[in-house]
Amino acid sequence: MRIAIDAMGGDHAPDEIIAGALEAIPQLDKDDEVILVGPQELVEAKLAELKYKKGRVSIHDAPDVVAMDEAPIESLRSKPKSSIAVMAKLAKRGQADAVISAGNTGACVAAFQMRMRNLPKVNRPGIAVVFPMSAGPVTICDVGANVACKPVNLYQYGLMSSVYSQHILGIEQPRVGLMSIGEEDSKGNEVVKRTRELLRNDPQINFIGNIEGRDIFRGVCDVVVCEGFVGNVILKLTEGAVDGLFRAIKQELMQEKARLALKFKPIIMRVYKKHDYNEYGGAPLLGINGTAMICHGTSKSYTIRNAVMAAKKFHTQRINDKITTCLAEAHVRTTDA
Amino acid sequence: MRIAIDAMGGDHAPDEIIAGALEAIPQLDKDDEVILVGPQELVEAKLAELKYKKGRVSIHDAPDVVAMDEAPIESLRSKPKSSIAVMAKLAKRGQADAVISAGNTGACVAAFQMRMRNLPKVNRPGIAVVFPMSAGPVTICDVGANVACKPVNLYQYGLMSSVYSQHILGIEQPRVGLMSIGEEDSKGNEVVKRTRELLRNDPQINFIGNIEGRDIFRGVCDVVVCEGFVGNVILKLTEGAVDGLFRAIKQELMQEKARLALKFKPIIMRVYKKHDYNEYGGAPLLGINGTAMICHGTSKSYTIRNAVMAAKKFHTQRINDKITTCLAEAHVRTTDA
Repeated sequence: MRIAIDAMGGDHAPDEIIAGALEAIPQLDKDDEVILVGPQELVEAKLAELKYKKGRVSIHDAPDVVAMDEAPIESLRSKPKSSIAVMAKLAKRGQADAVISAGNTGACVAAFQMRMRNLPKVNRPGIAVVFPMSAGPVTICDVGANVACKPVNLYQYGLMSSVYSQHILGIEQPRVGLMSIGEEDSKGNEVVKRTRELLRNDPQINFIGNIEGRDIFRGVCDVVVCEGFVGNVILKLTEGAVDGLFRAIKQELMQEKARLALKFKPIIMRVYKKHDYNEYGGAPLLGINGTAMICHGTSKSYTIRNAVMAAKKFHTQRINDKITTCLAEAHVRTTDA
Repeated sequence: MRIAIDAMGGDHAPDEIIAGALEAIPQLDKDDEVILVGPQELVEAKLAELKYKKGRVSIHDAPDVVAMDEAPIESLRSKPKSSIAVMAKLAKRGQADAVISAGNTGACVAAFQMRMRNLPKVNRPGIAVVFPMSAGPVTICDVGANVACKPVNLYQYGLMSSVYSQHILGIEQPRVGLMSIGEEDSKGNEVVKRTRELLRNDPQINFIGNIEGRDIFRGVCDVVVCEGFVGNVILKLTEGAVDGLFRAIKQELMQEKARLALKFKPIIMRVYKKHDYNEYGGAPLLGINGTAMICHGTSKSYTIRNAVMAAKKFHTQRINDKITTCLAEAHVRTTDA
């Protein structure tokens, strides 16, 4: 398997990205390869400073870089040789079996969709993020690929995430919840109400009905379906709430005796580690015809290494074949709703 | 001032509601009155068990009760004598200067809008919740009154919340942020993009641009504008994240020595108290022609007492007059967008 990694994507690129890619190699199969996509000379110079198994790592030149805050479509147009654009082309030509980036999410989604195309019957791909919870991992889709969702998109996110949750996270019959503002059928906006009918009518989906924001943390479901705008707010809000709370606890602890504060540190660290979503590496772009992992902009080597392993598993488990089979069996037409 | 309180609204009604109403009385002015709205005999019997200043409390009979999970519009149609419907009528007839309920939020919004009507130029009222943060209180509007927002609605939430933040929370020139999925202008859905222009062009609003979910906890803004669906998810998600994290910390502590766990408890309690939104009592329904406070369904007496005080302040500070003046000066027409 050949895994292409955007060496220039993310706040800690290229150093942490390259380090993560190299860390993954010993855990991959012997005939697996890593392709670092970025400016040839720069990546070469960085690699020269590091120890690694030659022959398993190659560089594919991509002189341009899309900045984190650039407008996605425009950046792809003006920088056809950016690492993101080049990576998407490698996948299209069959020169890479998986693509991974911690760069501009919008640019990744646009480039991957344009070059790699969607799986049969998929209308719009969605990004699925896994939240590690004490009651088990919760998959949330979409978290930002699609901010103008139709009911059929949301329905497909439910089906695809269900397949992912079952075969990657090992959850039998994942419980699928639809994010709304009340459990009752009457609650929600029009798109949510119409989506509910589609999810409810597919026997392949273990649909539990509407859920609310707080339910994500209560172990009531394994998959959360929501449109990209809402999912992105959920993702960043949770991050902010957790960080804010840990900061507040730290402030209070600073006012206590230093010895006491020291004793609490390992406890807090254990809680933090159990809820650390870097554990899952990247978030798959479900519905794309290939394996694409999108990582958080703040990713360090540890996350990138995990993303490589996640891409390997996604590819090996043939998740896309399973999604295609499920969609073929579904009664919902892609032209519905 | 006469303050009507829904004695039957919320998970802890009527006991906690009545208790909260009575607790508020000593803090009100001498000529202020509290009207408990609910089934006459039931409320009378509950009152008979309690000590309170007669003459300052009256009962207004409302034999029906809207359940927390009833469909709002249907419940108002089938139960015209519910406490919520009766309270709205009292406000309409000028027999109550403020209404407070911890009951079915949708039914409250529908009843108050139908009977009390909107302020001049207001298209749709919005519920504004205040999050207490270490860097200062953050007002979020709307959190569930309007799940099909137009740009003009969002613009008005920004303006009205700004007035509220300034005159109730004492923040000079509140910084108003628009909830989106990235700071850049290109990010967000169509409604968000059009709202940005409206907010940016009103010199009465100290608009700081797009914000992301995590920014709520970072002290970058005093007001957050979002549509009701997103705001409701934010509200419940934050609640769930905070509860979940405290539970996780508790679990870890249980595995430590009991003495250490005991020492940690007051620290956690201090953090909890600083972020306790019950402090602010109810959430005002901004844009309604009157004073209406909507409380969390889980409200206990403490929250209801604070909601009464919040209603008193809202009324005394003439927030609605200030909103009306600002809207009259605005260049955005209510027919815009």
